[in-house]
Amino acid sequence: MMKVYFDNAATTAMDDQVIEAMLPFMKSHFGNPSSVHSHGREVRSAIEKSRKKVAELLNASPSEIFFTSGGTEADNTALVCGIDTHEITHAISSPIEHHAVLHTLEVLAQKGKIKLSLLDVDHQGNIDYDQLTTLLKANPKSLVSLMHANNEIGTLNDLERIGTLAKEYGAFFHSDTVQTMGHYRHDLKNLPVDAIVAGGHKFHGPKGAGFLYVRKDKKIHPFIHGGAQERNMRGGTENVIGIIGVAKALELAYEHMEEHQSQIRSLKARFIEKLRAEIPGVEFNGMSENIDQSLYTVLNVSLPPSESNSGMLLFNLDLAGISASGGSACSSGATVGSHVLRAIGAKADRDSVRFSFSRFNSLQEVDYTIERLKELYSVEA
Amino acid sequence: MMKVYFDNAATTAMDDQVIEAMLPFMKSHFGNPSSVHSHGREVRSAIEKSRKKVAELLNASPSEIFFTSGGTEADNTALVCGIDTHEITHAISSPIEHHAVLHTLEVLAQKGKIKLSLLDVDHQGNIDYDQLTTLLKANPKSLVSLMHANNEIGTLNDLERIGTLAKEYGAFFHSDTVQTMGHYRHDLKNLPVDAIVAGGHKFHGPKGAGFLYVRKDKKIHPFIHGGAQERNMRGGTENVIGIIGVAKALELAYEHMEEHQSQIRSLKARFIEKLRAEIPGVEFNGMSENIDQSLYTVLNVSLPPSESNSGMLLFNLDLAGISASGGSACSSGATVGSHVLRAIGAKADRDSVRFSFSRFNSLQEVDYTIERLKELYSVEA
Repeated sequence: MMKVYFDNAATTAMDDQVIEAMLPFMKSHFGNPSSVHSHGREVRSAIEKSRKKVAELLNASPSEIFFTSGGTEADNTALVCGIDTHEITHAISSPIEHHAVLHTLEVLAQKGKIKLSLLDVDHQGNIDYDQLTTLLKANPKSLVSLMHANNEIGTLNDLERIGTLAKEYGAFFHSDTVQTMGHYRHDLKNLPVDAIVAGGHKFHGPKGAGFLYVRKDKKIHPFIHGGAQERNMRGGTENVIGIIGVAKALELAYEHMEEHQSQIRSLKARFIEKLRAEIPGVEFNGMSENIDQSLYTVLNVSLPPSESNSGMLLFNLDLAGISASGGSACSSGATVGSHVLRAIGAKADRDSVRFSFSRFNSLQEVDYTIERLKELYSVEA
Repeated sequence: MMKVYFDNAATTAMDDQVIEAMLPFMKSHFGNPSSVHSHGREVRSAIEKSRKKVAELLNASPSEIFFTSGGTEADNTALVCGIDTHEITHAISSPIEHHAVLHTLEVLAQKGKIKLSLLDVDHQGNIDYDQLTTLLKANPKSLVSLMHANNEIGTLNDLERIGTLAKEYGAFFHSDTVQTMGHYRHDLKNLPVDAIVAGGHKFHGPKGAGFLYVRKDKKIHPFIHGGAQERNMRGGTENVIGIIGVAKALELAYEHMEEHQSQIRSLKARFIEKLRAEIPGVEFNGMSENIDQSLYTVLNVSLPPSESNSGMLLFNLDLAGISASGGSACSSGATVGSHVLRAIGAKADRDSVRFSFSRFNSLQEVDYTIERLKELYSVEA
């Protein structure tokens, strides 16, 4: 049986070159980067090279890059400390944000630290820019947190447009860029965002490592206290192998980005084309079937009602060797259902599956998956 | 030139068996543990096995163990969320705690969330138990945060005694056990602590991974929001290789603990003996020269005033290939001086060096270091 991994929005396989870059820091270069002796200095130097590399790729300054334990910690830091530092009392977000953003803001709202306004989203997951403008006008000095690409349905927000509005009304603009980092180019000297984040494992780097970018003139307090690490922005001995891995993964992603994009777009195009041809009644959630206007790694498929697959589709695919997701895989107990699909009003009588692709996937895997889906849905035909 | 690493309280070299345990999760088992398909399930299973192993070794329940990005995040979580969850308004700590504890509590005090009382410490870094009792009596339902072993001067606190007092007065007792985890046995069914922490890299595991233990009946809110990971206690995709590594390192530490202890004690004993014989006027900071009543991995040496070494001792040792520390290496800019040595009133005209040992060190390295110290201090004799 073929094994197919189509859950790359949940996590990706590490690139061998990333592993190779990390290994010396597991085996021989083990010093604490805060130590001033030779064992420490060689590691400090490697970390600062990694920071410089990340900054260079994003057209940012090394002093704006802070390594974290991943995208979720980076999101929490930007939100909790952005609000605290800049004495913000109102936040604007959307109901289809990742829980790292939504839950964090909800807790701050429950504690009475902020008032939280969630924008309406349409059936495709697009926000209402007029409503955003109205809210910004009514609440100057807000925090705006809107993701770059939705992890479940692939809908893209226009960061340029949101950032320009945020700037106009003096708002702090954070964007959860976990799904686009390493997949799109971010030019931070020109993009009007104040804070963005990355999780290495979404672009063939390690889990447990990521970074937070905070614009120079929007500095925030630390979230984790305890030492002078990360220029006093994050206490705790650095996850050295994680940092080396994240930087290497981002470097590889930028080096071959157009090539990978075109390969992955071909997979997605073939997938859509074959689904339409082979599965009568297939539909797509969000913007994901529009290859140019959605996250090219994600396809969220809405399958026609089927007795033998209802609620069992992911299980049936798993039995056929295909790993896909029924929404975000970023938290267990996925059976609760997706807050994103609910918010965009996806049809409840249909099974939704997110197939998400990486450069390690092949057209053969697409064809294999379509064959299996055909079998699963032909039973009742 | 010999290269000697005597800074094991800052960080340790990874054990080859730990690296071997981690590698499969870098190379092939890359799934997201929250995914319900086969790629995810195999990783979920490995994580839960690791949790069970850690719990077993510490005589705790798996539901009391939460993996974190390290000791500092674990300390922050216990303090910030312990205080928040249990509506605590007064904390008792000491001036020689690690900055992960001290800075975190200071920030909470500055924000007006708690009143912070710091116990007096004597010249050896021992706390005043009568003062602790008085404070607990005057402030029932306090949080007590006192480390197990001081990372710079090796002084041990009596967790049993502190915990019994804390229990008597209804206090929440957190202990920063970063320096003793994997070096001493902790029996959590019988030790009256509510929260302790670990950083894997202090016992030959990976950096960027550790855990927090929180006693079942003292549950706390999460610190990092974003998903249902770690039983809703820590959002964010798990650092899988880190978790596997921490558990393996702890397993190895427990397997051979007495053997390692006796080996490291021999190193420390020889170091003390030779220093006394070869360096006239040598003294020791804290309790560290008392092998039975101090952290056996740490020796804090106070060297006689010397013009050619004053402020240059670590540098001179580094030139001789010896890595040691001038206090805690857990934060850069070590030139600020050690808050611990200041608090115990160490003599300012003498140079202090912390030598810290691991099972990877040898008697030859001790002898080599003594020879170099002899040379450095004989210049002026």
